[in-house]
Amino acid sequence: TLLAQLLSEVGQSGGESVRMMPVHQDLAGKRVVITAGPTREALDPVRYLSNHSSGKMGYALAAACVERGASVSLVSGPVTLPIPPGVNRIDVTSATEMLAAVESQLPCDLFIGCAAVADYRAAAVSEHKLKKTDADSGLTLELVRNPDIVATIAARPDRPFTVGFAAETQSLETHAGSKLERKRLDLIVANDVSREGVGFGSDDNAVTLLWKTHDQIRHLELPLQSKAALAGAIVDHIADRLT
Amino acid sequence: TLLAQLLSEVGQSGGESVRMMPVHQDLAGKRVVITAGPTREALDPVRYLSNHSSGKMGYALAAACVERGASVSLVSGPVTLPIPPGVNRIDVTSATEMLAAVESQLPCDLFIGCAAVADYRAAAVSEHKLKKTDADSGLTLELVRNPDIVATIAARPDRPFTVGFAAETQSLETHAGSKLERKRLDLIVANDVSREGVGFGSDDNAVTLLWKTHDQIRHLELPLQSKAALAGAIVDHIADRLT
Repeated sequence: TLLAQLLSEVGQSGGESVRMMPVHQDLAGKRVVITAGPTREALDPVRYLSNHSSGKMGYALAAACVERGASVSLVSGPVTLPIPPGVNRIDVTSATEMLAAVESQLPCDLFIGCAAVADYRAAAVSEHKLKKTDADSGLTLELVRNPDIVATIAARPDRPFTVGFAAETQSLETHAGSKLERKRLDLIVANDVSREGVGFGSDDNAVTLLWKTHDQIRHLELPLQSKAALAGAIVDHIADRLT
Repeated sequence: TLLAQLLSEVGQSGGESVRMMPVHQDLAGKRVVITAGPTREALDPVRYLSNHSSGKMGYALAAACVERGASVSLVSGPVTLPIPPGVNRIDVTSATEMLAAVESQLPCDLFIGCAAVADYRAAAVSEHKLKKTDADSGLTLELVRNPDIVATIAARPDRPFTVGFAAETQSLETHAGSKLERKRLDLIVANDVSREGVGFGSDDNAVTLLWKTHDQIRHLELPLQSKAALAGAIVDHIADRLT
């Protein structure tokens, strides 16, 4: 019934962006894969390297895509968020595991790499806890590069529409524009994480969307708003270009 | 009233170790400082080094000490646990901040260093996000030693009864016994984190207590049980020696 459909729509919005009208199902039939949260790179059984990330932005994007009719796989690093209704969550820890989980969900129509993937991991992971030696001595940690998940997906012959995120603390548009081209992304969501009240852990965010049309980089500023509302605005932009 | 007192006791136990009798107030008038959770050591505004720790054991110890009449300051790294009723929680991120927060709470009668403090921090913290250079190049991270919080407290002229934790993956009692002596602790709680179902993130744990009497190291094994019950058993042992 219409009432049941309406209630279901309201329920899927997680109470954060309750709409009185059923949301337009402009992603119906689309397969979407989203990464969210940090990755953790073990140094030994006790220590790890990680990035700040609450996972809230990626989870909000997953909820927004489900709401618009997509089938969504959410590949998530360690966070403390509940699974959004209707989302297929796959839990991972390291960047290597995250890439394998994403690849297991291909092919798809849309990939959004929202996770804060650790760029480096230890060259060697100790099976036992590393023991300290001299009381005052330092430690030199040899790190190797992790796979670049979003660039790996964008380079596939069967590439989906591929969206990356760029968390920057300076020269936001220059760095993000360069990432867009180098990684061959269809869209990049740039996030100035040095601003107060936005980004990591916060419930709000403000971002700039960058994409290319006719060899020109286009910009769209999305002002400070809840991550749920922002996810809706980002998916609006994606859906217009995807369909 | 007796009923109100009884209900308050039950409330303070967090529902995990409900007792029908009011708990013996054997820590009444004692000041207790406890550290819990991991520390995070920033490499730049995005990346950090950390340790696995849910904070559950330290929070259970704080609740157990309050239940027995102590005044408890809980210096906590980033965790997602609620503040136990009656506990004064002080939130910190790095090991340096944790030591400063502990020192701000001195003097005290009992210090329990339960946090998984990162042994090392970056020699230099970048103000801006470190940019990757060549696609396949590695990274060498220069780390320096963090202060040893439990050893620093145990070395003070006004030292409290000082309890440390040892998370080990091999030669548990040898490593823990050596820490007990080297750091001049009154008690060490040794935790074999390589065992299934114990330690990090788990609600249960099994530990060995080690302490020295008459130049001999004594052992007490506390079998697998809930962290709340284990906290009670550890505080039983401490209270016997403290009073």
